[in-house]
Amino acid sequence: MSIQTSRRAFLANTFKYTGLLAAGGVGASAMHAVLPHRSQAAASTGHPWPWPYVKLDVEAGRKLGHDSYWSGKGCSYAAFYPIVHALEQEIGAPFTNFPAEMMIYGHGGGAGWGGLCGALNGAAAAICLVTDKKTSDMLISDLFGWYTQAFLPTDCSNEYALKKAYGVNKYNEKVQQNKSGSILCHVSGSLWSNHAGFKIIDLERKERCARLTGDTVAFAIALLNDNFDGKFKPVASANPVANSCNTCHGKEGEKPDVLSKMDCMQCHGDPHAQ
Amino acid sequence: MSIQTSRRAFLANTFKYTGLLAAGGVGASAMHAVLPHRSQAAASTGHPWPWPYVKLDVEAGRKLGHDSYWSGKGCSYAAFYPIVHALEQEIGAPFTNFPAEMMIYGHGGGAGWGGLCGALNGAAAAICLVTDKKTSDMLISDLFGWYTQAFLPTDCSNEYALKKAYGVNKYNEKVQQNKSGSILCHVSGSLWSNHAGFKIIDLERKERCARLTGDTVAFAIALLNDNFDGKFKPVASANPVANSCNTCHGKEGEKPDVLSKMDCMQCHGDPHAQ
Repeated sequence: MSIQTSRRAFLANTFKYTGLLAAGGVGASAMHAVLPHRSQAAASTGHPWPWPYVKLDVEAGRKLGHDSYWSGKGCSYAAFYPIVHALEQEIGAPFTNFPAEMMIYGHGGGAGWGGLCGALNGAAAAICLVTDKKTSDMLISDLFGWYTQAFLPTDCSNEYALKKAYGVNKYNEKVQQNKSGSILCHVSGSLWSNHAGFKIIDLERKERCARLTGDTVAFAIALLNDNFDGKFKPVASANPVANSCNTCHGKEGEKPDVLSKMDCMQCHGDPHAQ
Repeated sequence: MSIQTSRRAFLANTFKYTGLLAAGGVGASAMHAVLPHRSQAAASTGHPWPWPYVKLDVEAGRKLGHDSYWSGKGCSYAAFYPIVHALEQEIGAPFTNFPAEMMIYGHGGGAGWGGLCGALNGAAAAICLVTDKKTSDMLISDLFGWYTQAFLPTDCSNEYALKKAYGVNKYNEKVQQNKSGSILCHVSGSLWSNHAGFKIIDLERKERCARLTGDTVAFAIALLNDNFDGKFKPVASANPVANSCNTCHGKEGEKPDVLSKMDCMQCHGDPHAQ
């Protein structure tokens, strides 16, 4: 199966943005507090947030994301580091000596607990470092939506491995692709493990996550580049199942007890089935 | 019900550390790559990671965590900011003008998707900024374990609200307490909403998350202080249900297809039940 996972192909082939992004998240609409939150004073004494961005090389990010996975610092660092490293190369300060290792904790869904995929966590942190809240929410929702719907790792990553185009070559065969449907490390990893027939600790599973990390970096850079060019249009804010369930359980529904864009049925099945 | 949620009480009353921490996470045992990962060169040109730490005031962190939730920047920023802000006050550089807003994206489980609780995400990032990988994994696992087992918000946070001791006073009643059993925003928020009988968008739910964020900051600071004093002992690395399921599905089991420390039955029920 030939699978396109570029942002262009994703834009063309997936479901359309449903407007849920405007719903925002916890506290998004809260009043500003009177606290002296530092960013408001940073302009005069340092680098105000968000930090600057220039367009980056998507494929260089994909390769460095893969290779950084094998640095021993895990998937979350490996998704964050290539972006801040490239910005340090292009811009210098304020990215000079940024402690990218602060994102190590995201590995394995958060210190190995299986929550938010570390590649998504690290890439999202990089996006949020260089974009304001409204923009980062949109870009990150698109990144999460892509991750849940794409067959990963991409053909591109598999081809790099076959050609030994990476800096770190642990496994040079094609890695089986699947669609996880989830932003969660445990769901993503376990579904792939069962799909591909490898143990969760096998080299093949780790290399799958290394390539997936590179793909996530590449997609995040593509999003940031599109945003830099004023071309970003949100596409994949929520799962179609979540959209359906949220008509009742979401903030505007009759039983508003859920704030989530994950595929409800992956954990709940259909609780209303006869 | 009087509920103790201090670290001391948690240490005394919960299940014992099972040793699973040593299992680490994705890629933890991977070889170091040949890439010029910046931290290795940072010592000569900047501030090497991990950044310095000094003991901080637990209760000041609890209050600022609560108040920062209402800054409009969300729960994840609100759990991260108080720690780096306090370290800036105590130490100065390298914490001066740190872009704490980079953690905004964690709100609502990641741009509102419902994944890893944003308070945990932000606090974990702060822990990882100032501790090495092995230490941060241990401290964060303990933080996650506490969060899943504690009745939140704590009595302490409720009492601050009743006494109007916060800087931001949105709701000065006691907030109902429950044990979420999960590190995930969606599970934590929805279970509380149904437990307490409030809509997920109600002020009471937001104030619950504000107090919970303060409690998470406080617990994270307590962990960091214990570690600073050389007194930290890991306690709550994994859920007891996860421990049981992982005997077969974990990395040492007969069907090793899972890397997770979450309560399996919250999503799966008992798949082996007759």
